Amino acid sequence: MAWMSFGAESYSLLCLFVGGADAAKIPLAMLLVFGSAKLLAELFERLGQPGIVGEILAGVLIGPSVLGWIAPSDFLTALSELGVMFLLFRVGLEVKSSELMRVGGTAALTAVLGVVVPFFLGWGILLLWGAPQIEALFVGAAMVATSVGITAQVLAVKGLLQERSSKIILAAAVIDDVLGLLVLALVASLAKGKANLLELGVTAALAVGFTVIVAKWGTRTMGQVARVQEKLRVGESQFALAMILLFALSLLAVYAGVAAIIGAFLAGMALSESVGHRVHDLAHGVTELLVPFFLAGIGLHFNLRAFTDSGTILLALVILAAAVLSKFLGCGAGALRLGKADAIRVGVGMVPRGEVGMVVAQIGLGLGVIGQQVYGVVVFMAVLTTILAPPLLNLAYRDLMTPETGRKEVFRID
Amino acid sequence: MAWMSFGAESYSLLCLFVGGADAAKIPLAMLLVFGSAKLLAELFERLGQPGIVGEILAGVLIGPSVLGWIAPSDFLTALSELGVMFLLFRVGLEVKSSELMRVGGTAALTAVLGVVVPFFLGWGILLLWGAPQIEALFVGAAMVATSVGITAQVLAVKGLLQERSSKIILAAAVIDDVLGLLVLALVASLAKGKANLLELGVTAALAVGFTVIVAKWGTRTMGQVARVQEKLRVGESQFALAMILLFALSLLAVYAGVAAIIGAFLAGMALSESVGHRVHDLAHGVTELLVPFFLAGIGLHFNLRAFTDSGTILLALVILAAAVLSKFLGCGAGALRLGKADAIRVGVGMVPRGEVGMVVAQIGLGLGVIGQQVYGVVVFMAVLTTILAPPLLNLAYRDLMTPETGRKEVFRID
Repeated sequence: MAWMSFGAESYSLLCLFVGGADAAKIPLAMLLVFGSAKLLAELFERLGQPGIVGEILAGVLIGPSVLGWIAPSDFLTALSELGVMFLLFRVGLEVKSSELMRVGGTAALTAVLGVVVPFFLGWGILLLWGAPQIEALFVGAAMVATSVGITAQVLAVKGLLQERSSKIILAAAVIDDVLGLLVLALVASLAKGKANLLELGVTAALAVGFTVIVAKWGTRTMGQVARVQEKLRVGESQFALAMILLFALSLLAVYAGVAAIIGAFLAGMALSESVGHRVHDLAHGVTELLVPFFLAGIGLHFNLRAFTDSGTILLALVILAAAVLSKFLGCGAGALRLGKADAIRVGVGMVPRGEVGMVVAQIGLGLGVIGQQVYGVVVFMAVLTTILAPPLLNLAYRDLMTPETGRKEVFRID
Repeated sequence: MAWMSFGAESYSLLCLFVGGADAAKIPLAMLLVFGSAKLLAELFERLGQPGIVGEILAGVLIGPSVLGWIAPSDFLTALSELGVMFLLFRVGLEVKSSELMRVGGTAALTAVLGVVVPFFLGWGILLLWGAPQIEALFVGAAMVATSVGITAQVLAVKGLLQERSSKIILAAAVIDDVLGLLVLALVASLAKGKANLLELGVTAALAVGFTVIVAKWGTRTMGQVARVQEKLRVGESQFALAMILLFALSLLAVYAGVAAIIGAFLAGMALSESVGHRVHDLAHGVTELLVPFFLAGIGLHFNLRAFTDSGTILLALVILAAAVLSKFLGCGAGALRLGKADAIRVGVGMVPRGEVGMVVAQIGLGLGVIGQQVYGVVVFMAVLTTILAPPLLNLAYRDLMTPETGRKEVFRID
């Protein structure tokens, strides 16, 4: 027994270098999250359900809410953030910025209506429920934020990224993120009782300026960089440069006030016309490894223990219904000029709130203006809209899917 | 200004979900480490030096020792551990276990001599320097551990993994890890004053049993699993299964007492005859992203501030020379039956101590039997042997490299 206790102590010491408390920690976390995500994805595919929902539910299952095998940690959230960055980067690689610019008008209308309708609906419901003004405003802001990762993953796996509606969704999601930043900034400054319109304007200009400049001139600049890249001697230089651009634009995006994943998407898009298959394949490997951490990571944050009374449960269900309907109707109305079928696709594609909705709620919690119950309600809404989106997308896009496209891997090597 | 301070606070709150203190933290760390590693790799290649040395020195440069831009963190050490796991996994994919078994005798002799000579040399030098018995034993143990990652990366990039000497190095490194575990276990139990030979035997049997069973029957088992995999519906199922095997065997290796990277190597080797190009390419993408974190991570731990007096500097240089010569002569003698050229290659290939040597020193530090000065000396030895190995390997293998193989990317898609 003395030896066994030495063994355990030796493991924990062995790990000072390799990441914290225990040499087993990293492989164990990787195995638990990745393995359970893929197991449930396989199960869901066999039941005719979207595998992506299985991966989110894997997080719920192994997380604190059910089995309690694993809790969100800095390491897992870092992998989750990297996962959604690579997801959006890979999607960006499939999209030409000129094509996104072309649908800009419709996308802008979609984004604006998809911000206004959910915001006022969320605000109104919370006021009716008797919440304080500022808490109601925060829930409205949390209902604004679209998490494009889930929709992008579904469309990418089904080979549907080149559809007109897909491009509207992607462009609208970028605009939505900038608008969401402004709504959040306004609401948060109201919470502190010092809104300053001039400084709000500077924030807006910075976020819009960054996005427009990279979207408009990124592709041309990368075409010139590609000529330099051919002269480099380091191995896999095209992939290395792509990674540096990905991290640099993600960082600049954060500094400009928008989400890191918007920078990642813009990096992919800037490279879409200059990089070869090799970069697609290598980035796809990273994405395949890390996306389950993003998906299961959403599930890990789900916690049913917030719902102790029937009033909160009712509020959660009402907010969930409002979140789905307000994005569906608002964004659908914005895209109505494309016809009913595409308007439905766009409306459904903007429904998931995912990690973005949770972040807004956490900021409210941090400022002390959102209570634990309402926080639980927002997380419930964010996770459930994310789980509902893939089957709704399958329905909305079923006319465009042949039996083959439904099984198609768009990123497979030919 | 109020607004700016709100901005900063908003960023930090935004990040509760996405990984700790700051939304910029993850992309900033990724950009700094990956970007500087690739920049210095390019610079070194242009100077005719191995790029891998540039990547290690990038860690020294941006780390606490020089610029102080970044310090080792849980996140970076986790990426570093994953990086070396994927590196060994990818190398394992290129190696058939039957080929490794065939060179087992020579590899065993190489490993044993490469453990005995450095151990006694390190022990003797420290005793002569006037160190206490137990500290001298720990330095001997730290000089035993070979870090095969560096050599494997050099051989892989140069397309030399199929050489006979490369197979000896890989097989000897696996045996070396098991022997190193036993030496460390013995020394650590002496430090606690309670060595128990029976329990030491159990540890040995567990480590040897795990390694032999996986090496011997892994390939056949994976051939059978491949038939199941064809029936799976989840996307990229072959890659998903490979990842699950990688994490599972890394975890089992830790439980069996050997390093996670030995499990990763065995997982790759078990799959080498059953997986297609697709898995190679996807795993290669992850490896290309993460290996710079392993290499720069070694450099990050380098700290010149330990060397305050000339006695310590002298000891560091003597230990470094002893570390290089003892592995070179010990392992070279073990492989002498292959002829002088291959014996030199094997001897040079076993020189780097890398992260493994540091871990042993940290265990000694944790047990309170190694002082800060001697710890600094061991880290100096571990980093310097790692930096010296790539140019020495280039020299030892120069007869096998045509101008093309020197620039060849063994993992490139045809």
